[in-house]
Amino acid sequence: MSPYSEIKFDINYDPANLRWNGWGAEGHDFFYANRVPEIVALLAKEIGVAPDSFASTPSVALEDLRVPPARIGEAGLKSLATIVGKDAVFADRRMRVLYSRGQSYYDLIRLRTNQFSVYSDAVVFPSDEKQVAKLLAWCEKNRAAFIPCGGASSVVGGLEPIAGAHKAILTVNLQRMNKLIEVDEISGLATFEAGIFGPQIERILNDRGWTLGHFPQSFEYSTLGGWAAARSAGQQSNRYGKIEEILTALRMVSPAGEIETLRAPAGATGPDWNQIIAGSEGLLGVITRATVKIHRLPEVRSYFAAYFPDLARAVAFVQDAVHADFAMARISDALETRNLEILSRAVKPETAASAFKHQLQEQALRIAGMRAGRCLVIAGFEGDAREVQGREITARQLIRKHKGFYGGKSGGQNWQRGRFNMPFLRNHLLERGIGVDTLETAVTYDRVFELHDAVLKALKKSADPCLAMCHLSHSYHEGACLYFTCMFPIDVRDPVGQWKRIKIAASDAVVAAGGNISHHHGVGADHRPWFLKSLGATGVGALKALKANLDPKAILNPGKLFG
Amino acid sequence: MSPYSEIKFDINYDPANLRWNGWGAEGHDFFYANRVPEIVALLAKEIGVAPDSFASTPSVALEDLRVPPARIGEAGLKSLATIVGKDAVFADRRMRVLYSRGQSYYDLIRLRTNQFSVYSDAVVFPSDEKQVAKLLAWCEKNRAAFIPCGGASSVVGGLEPIAGAHKAILTVNLQRMNKLIEVDEISGLATFEAGIFGPQIERILNDRGWTLGHFPQSFEYSTLGGWAAARSAGQQSNRYGKIEEILTALRMVSPAGEIETLRAPAGATGPDWNQIIAGSEGLLGVITRATVKIHRLPEVRSYFAAYFPDLARAVAFVQDAVHADFAMARISDALETRNLEILSRAVKPETAASAFKHQLQEQALRIAGMRAGRCLVIAGFEGDAREVQGREITARQLIRKHKGFYGGKSGGQNWQRGRFNMPFLRNHLLERGIGVDTLETAVTYDRVFELHDAVLKALKKSADPCLAMCHLSHSYHEGACLYFTCMFPIDVRDPVGQWKRIKIAASDAVVAAGGNISHHHGVGADHRPWFLKSLGATGVGALKALKANLDPKAILNPGKLFG
Repeated sequence: MSPYSEIKFDINYDPANLRWNGWGAEGHDFFYANRVPEIVALLAKEIGVAPDSFASTPSVALEDLRVPPARIGEAGLKSLATIVGKDAVFADRRMRVLYSRGQSYYDLIRLRTNQFSVYSDAVVFPSDEKQVAKLLAWCEKNRAAFIPCGGASSVVGGLEPIAGAHKAILTVNLQRMNKLIEVDEISGLATFEAGIFGPQIERILNDRGWTLGHFPQSFEYSTLGGWAAARSAGQQSNRYGKIEEILTALRMVSPAGEIETLRAPAGATGPDWNQIIAGSEGLLGVITRATVKIHRLPEVRSYFAAYFPDLARAVAFVQDAVHADFAMARISDALETRNLEILSRAVKPETAASAFKHQLQEQALRIAGMRAGRCLVIAGFEGDAREVQGREITARQLIRKHKGFYGGKSGGQNWQRGRFNMPFLRNHLLERGIGVDTLETAVTYDRVFELHDAVLKALKKSADPCLAMCHLSHSYHEGACLYFTCMFPIDVRDPVGQWKRIKIAASDAVVAAGGNISHHHGVGADHRPWFLKSLGATGVGALKALKANLDPKAILNPGKLFG
Repeated sequence: MSPYSEIKFDINYDPANLRWNGWGAEGHDFFYANRVPEIVALLAKEIGVAPDSFASTPSVALEDLRVPPARIGEAGLKSLATIVGKDAVFADRRMRVLYSRGQSYYDLIRLRTNQFSVYSDAVVFPSDEKQVAKLLAWCEKNRAAFIPCGGASSVVGGLEPIAGAHKAILTVNLQRMNKLIEVDEISGLATFEAGIFGPQIERILNDRGWTLGHFPQSFEYSTLGGWAAARSAGQQSNRYGKIEEILTALRMVSPAGEIETLRAPAGATGPDWNQIIAGSEGLLGVITRATVKIHRLPEVRSYFAAYFPDLARAVAFVQDAVHADFAMARISDALETRNLEILSRAVKPETAASAFKHQLQEQALRIAGMRAGRCLVIAGFEGDAREVQGREITARQLIRKHKGFYGGKSGGQNWQRGRFNMPFLRNHLLERGIGVDTLETAVTYDRVFELHDAVLKALKKSADPCLAMCHLSHSYHEGACLYFTCMFPIDVRDPVGQWKRIKIAASDAVVAAGGNISHHHGVGADHRPWFLKSLGATGVGALKALKANLDPKAILNPGKLFG
């Protein structure tokens, strides 16, 4: 069995095949789609409402969306076709809808309830860097906004079609720029065009015995350029690094010209351009190429479950894990732990045998001191078999040190199997009146508990009734990423107002507790006010000056980040 | 014994006590100053010249330096005194000379031969951030250049007093801003004012059981702010990270205002301001505070020597070491290995017993296959005793895997003892007609050997006759830092022209072979042409726009980096 066998390599990315109002491609679904009614019933109980109290919330049909006429006419489309070719220019309803939004709850609820009023006017698919440069010039000349796009999986409004003073909006989708440029097996580096999807990268590298090791939850539907532009984090970032650490070099095409960073390991040559381009969310230019660190396919990827009596013990364990070569160490807080346990039972029909097995497990946990309030940790290692074996011994010692309970590998395997699957469940919940929003932040350890409690309080107050829970998804020397999930009955009278209330309350609480407004989702349009406040006027002014130099006509991705 | 006992905590940083034309404070010297004649004789042999062929090159006396009158008059000094206090403003000869140069060969040879024509007009020592802001405003108002300064140990012309269009030059020395602001033992973070020296940081942290772990060779005479401004690397950066990785937050005061980055572990909030400020070399503002990652004092610091039959085997070993928790793994090439061996014998009088011991060692090495061309590696670990023990077993396996020979710990201990001492030897060599220049670069592994050979060839050609050698000082996943040392008879007719010839040849060779013009020394005035070429017009233009916004009157450190 390949250590990466859970990767689905045969995804059909044909836009005709992608869901315009939900996650993923047609035919690619939640593993337990047939158990959704049972899941809904359980969630009702957890939220504290009657199981039949959720509204029916079917999506409007694509044909019924109020999509205004495109502001790029026949002549414009023709001139675009001279740049990218006829088969790479689209102004049809489906394409305009598909690439005018990301995958945030805010995006999807507006689409599904027909409240989106602005759409991109055309979508083009350049096939090389020269075409990108020409498209930039086209937008400058035609006073059109230029929105760069990869997998369109932003959950922070990174693709929000904001025209501003522009006469039209052009979305430029990089998916056809997905070639491998070079694999350097001596230096452990590979260079790809930026529009390549996660599974396409892994297929190319796995065939040669290598891996990138970057697995965000969006892995199946997001691209290398998108990861870099938004500072993505993979689930194994403890081992492989966050995308900005994985990058060795970048190439970006701006209206003012091209910037290519040096393909060298480290430097003392002024501000680090990789770290200016990473996170620039398409405001400074279009990332066209990236050189990334690659690793030999690990012989073993071994994940296990462990339980800790409370969040404090689990966090102390993870602080040790950061310095003990863990590929990942992920903590669910008490409520998320409880819900993961419930969910894992709900997705399979209960039999006498399974009920009995569950009873035994519960008993074992209680005997070990893991009662209500216990926190689940999924953690593990990747590498040579012997190396991993040694580390697992250390892991067991660390679990004991922090009064935890080793829960075996089946929990780890389940997590691996389902790691990219949860976004598909949301598709179903949105149909059944249940809203699902997520948000994340990074904070130093001295503030973890304060922030955890403050954000949950804000969510509970603003989304009452709801189920609000948290996991600690990534950890560092000095702090961690806290990832919150909030599920609530959709207020059909004003779903957008409901979301805004929740978003504002949660974001205010994050910033007040010293958290970063984003650890890996990015800023986009949604986090902009909190980002501007955190950075302050001097920093914002300087970034604007940088943009004014690279993008003097301000065509690039208006209204996002500091734009 | 403290694991950090080789740190000299009692250095007297009083400017009156610092050498104005060489490294360090009076009374702080090369350990084997009494053996310098023997060392000179050996170097002559290695360079290939007669031992008495070196010119006598005593320094001009401080009184005889042609220091032009200061262009900041009594009134100016008085108004500066209202900002920083009377005891913090200096325009005397010694102070102006001391802080108008760094510690490069180019700086020292010009000073010692009285070829420096421009000096800073005054030196001030602010004691807080508000004073820094007022000094910026003073320079804007008085059209003076503002050169921020820490330990004045730049080896790339980072302090070069270039007035440009300015009416005067003010050097602002941060050394009095050396307070601890906070130690956060929960998050493993400490915040200091930027002007604090290396040993001052370690003393504060060691007393509490912590360490920063950042030990550049300049450690004893350089400051936190200087490290950040120039992207310094410590000798143990494999374990503790390069300074830009050690930084969690920074505060910078610019003419346009203050930028303070968020004290959070990681983010997805646009371009990373820590990585814009790090390496900005005083062009964008003055770094006034830094929050850095700190670590529990390791129980053990254990370094050993190993030999490999050639550079290729040693590099292969180090590539494995990068992923095996080494705190350091440093390779000397064949010629540096040979010279280190010769030097270590030269510093002590030879006895019959020591000659016999050397003979035995040589025999053992030859039997193990380590003949001429062998490369010395100094490597080791820091951490818990048990942990380090385990890693040492792995290290021995890796040495065997790459056909190396374990050379024991005494070589490692010698390296630890002398790690900060070599710059003092240069003081003596400069007196005796021997020039010493060093340069470094970072390059990917696929180009290490090509670059190594090309740069040595360029040095040998441009500095003929010379002794040119190299060590690989820092290593990364995808490449390494190569550090070159060149020793040559000073051409007393034109020492500056001689240096320029060498610098240009070496830098051209570095860039042609794909290396970064600097890995940890910085750009300053000396590397500027190669830096500008590497980054390209678009990137340079954007940085200039950034600077124009933060420093609209262009007072900050003119003529360095992209300024």
